[in-house]
Amino acid sequence: MRIKSPGYTECLGSVRINDVQQVLELDSGRVKELPLRENIAVQKIEEEVIKYFEERMAIVIPTKDEKLKLFEGVISGIPHECLIIVVSNSQRKRVDRFRMEKDVLKQFCRFTRREALIIHQKDPVLARALAEAGCTDILGEDELVRHGKAEGMIAAMLVAMAAKKDFVGFIDADNYFPGAVWEYARCYASGFSMAKSPYSMVRVLWRYKPKISTGMFFNRWGRVSEITNKCMNSLISNKTGFETDIIKTGNAGEHAMSLRLAEILTYASGYAVEPQELISIFEGFSGILPMVHLAAAKHGIDIFQTETRNPHLHEEKGGRHILVEMLLPGLASIYHSLLCEKETKQLIIDELLKQSAIQPDEEPPKPRLIAPLRTINMKKFTSVMTEHMNSYSALELEE
Amino acid sequence: MRIKSPGYTECLGSVRINDVQQVLELDSGRVKELPLRENIAVQKIEEEVIKYFEERMAIVIPTKDEKLKLFEGVISGIPHECLIIVVSNSQRKRVDRFRMEKDVLKQFCRFTRREALIIHQKDPVLARALAEAGCTDILGEDELVRHGKAEGMIAAMLVAMAAKKDFVGFIDADNYFPGAVWEYARCYASGFSMAKSPYSMVRVLWRYKPKISTGMFFNRWGRVSEITNKCMNSLISNKTGFETDIIKTGNAGEHAMSLRLAEILTYASGYAVEPQELISIFEGFSGILPMVHLAAAKHGIDIFQTETRNPHLHEEKGGRHILVEMLLPGLASIYHSLLCEKETKQLIIDELLKQSAIQPDEEPPKPRLIAPLRTINMKKFTSVMTEHMNSYSALELEE
Repeated sequence: MRIKSPGYTECLGSVRINDVQQVLELDSGRVKELPLRENIAVQKIEEEVIKYFEERMAIVIPTKDEKLKLFEGVISGIPHECLIIVVSNSQRKRVDRFRMEKDVLKQFCRFTRREALIIHQKDPVLARALAEAGCTDILGEDELVRHGKAEGMIAAMLVAMAAKKDFVGFIDADNYFPGAVWEYARCYASGFSMAKSPYSMVRVLWRYKPKISTGMFFNRWGRVSEITNKCMNSLISNKTGFETDIIKTGNAGEHAMSLRLAEILTYASGYAVEPQELISIFEGFSGILPMVHLAAAKHGIDIFQTETRNPHLHEEKGGRHILVEMLLPGLASIYHSLLCEKETKQLIIDELLKQSAIQPDEEPPKPRLIAPLRTINMKKFTSVMTEHMNSYSALELEE
Repeated sequence: MRIKSPGYTECLGSVRINDVQQVLELDSGRVKELPLRENIAVQKIEEEVIKYFEERMAIVIPTKDEKLKLFEGVISGIPHECLIIVVSNSQRKRVDRFRMEKDVLKQFCRFTRREALIIHQKDPVLARALAEAGCTDILGEDELVRHGKAEGMIAAMLVAMAAKKDFVGFIDADNYFPGAVWEYARCYASGFSMAKSPYSMVRVLWRYKPKISTGMFFNRWGRVSEITNKCMNSLISNKTGFETDIIKTGNAGEHAMSLRLAEILTYASGYAVEPQELISIFEGFSGILPMVHLAAAKHGIDIFQTETRNPHLHEEKGGRHILVEMLLPGLASIYHSLLCEKETKQLIIDELLKQSAIQPDEEPPKPRLIAPLRTINMKKFTSVMTEHMNSYSALELEE
């Protein structure tokens, strides 16, 4: 894989935010060239390096009543070396869709001789493991994991830690193109290979996101992303005193983290989860507030933003409704950050009013925060889960 | 890459037509497993095997005034090991689109350090090389290569031979997904790796071909393909006496051949080119007519049909008009085959009448045939072309 070198890196305390890097070539072959002849603006990530990072990575697929054909396509695109972890919040009553997902995954794993884990978000053993480990922030009143994508993602990260992985990447289950899924995983691996710090994050930017209305129109950016990025850049600009547009992936659902970074971040519920990750990094390591983790502050936090070659074609769900539903929590996480000053707050209010997402004189609601995972007792979590690991495994042992 | 083993092989004299094989996993990683544990219904094609065949393969991209963004995406998806050969029939007057394609390709090759060739279909040197070599079937009255996709493809195959490649694969320039392009090349390589004979062909079947009208609808087969396959299967059924539906890729634009096979086939102009390839194979090697090439007849001809994981999303051009324009020549090549009996002829007439592609009592027009390439003088062709190779090369030498 060949990728452009980041043209610019914005530093904010210990945080290194790299500008967008384009993928140039999906498959750069096995031939090793002399580094001398390589263009300095381009980096070639060797196959073996990609594979090395893929082996250490779990790919989490959060899903909820997704079409099985899409789900099947997505798993078929994930490089063999990655551990697949499906966290499903699909219905189990009337039609047991979770069971169907499990069957599809089992068939895939049998044919491809690979291991995968699948777990239901409302699994009682998972809830017990979380409770015993002290991770109660994502549990609801029924003592099970709450509904919501963020809660599923967090549970899956703990499973990835229990499986002794070093990196976790997220890929949505509603992607039409297995080839795009494959590229995401490679972008994650490439990003980690470029990181100077063990605390690193890769966020994916889609080259185009086709809009299917009358014919095809290739949108460069989604509306939600555009507004979220603008507000986040306003926050950074106001801190540094230099205007910037460095953040282009504020809402990136497709993103990955080293688990050492993942365990020290504060998360937010629902659609605020992805913007909140950045906010947590800025709060914790920009040096404006006290550093939350000294080792990480010393190493620094590397953020990579990678623009894929493949467009992003996913299942379209709702119009305006979804826009507001996704926009509000993301902007709320910026608004309620301790770093957020008056100007950015006003910008957020203006944007939300423009979209009729709030009433005049109303503030966006406070995001529901989830404490960093490193405070929980991983030993306890792992010991409860290990006992039941067989029931989560998709690769059945042969007699 | 993991792919299903062909469930069934239809034999027609020396021709082995394999039933459709699904791709199961795009990237099966570097880990070699014990063959013992592999499922017998599944074949794992190791990365190094894929690369070995990619190195020996030229990927030909025929293009004509295609959007540059699409063209750029397509070349970015072609595995590094393959030699890219672009054969363009784009306009050169007013706006020099060929020049723009050349610039895009040059930029890509400079960044990715790979070689590619780009040649205009109306290039006078190409025409002279063809004339001197005795390949006049594709030359027009102006002594240049005629317009038409087939003519471009044939010229490109000769360039691939001159470049000492063993395989040639075709990929259209109007594909939206680089990840799908990458999969096509891998399907070709996998097919060749499974072939028992040096005379082999791989034809791609799309899992789905999304139709973008109101929302997205995933068509399993295009209408043209459906009718072409039906008529071709009728021809085979009537020869063997056993009804069959083995042919599922009669119109496959995405296909590849060993050059040893490519040079012994009779081709047809225009949209008949892909169905005619199969017809030539049936005529030459089914044993019903005299065998046209004894070595090939002895080795046999392997035809693979591979169903990709990625859907095929390409630029939509015209509606009914295109349907008829594509359908007629393909069916005409079956109709005018020496193998075609009364029943299949009647079926073809009925289908063409149903689509108003011909008038009652009218016959489909005879395809314009192009003699096999092995009759031409490759030495002469190569010597004329080699002299000008620098001007076709996209990778500029650095000082």
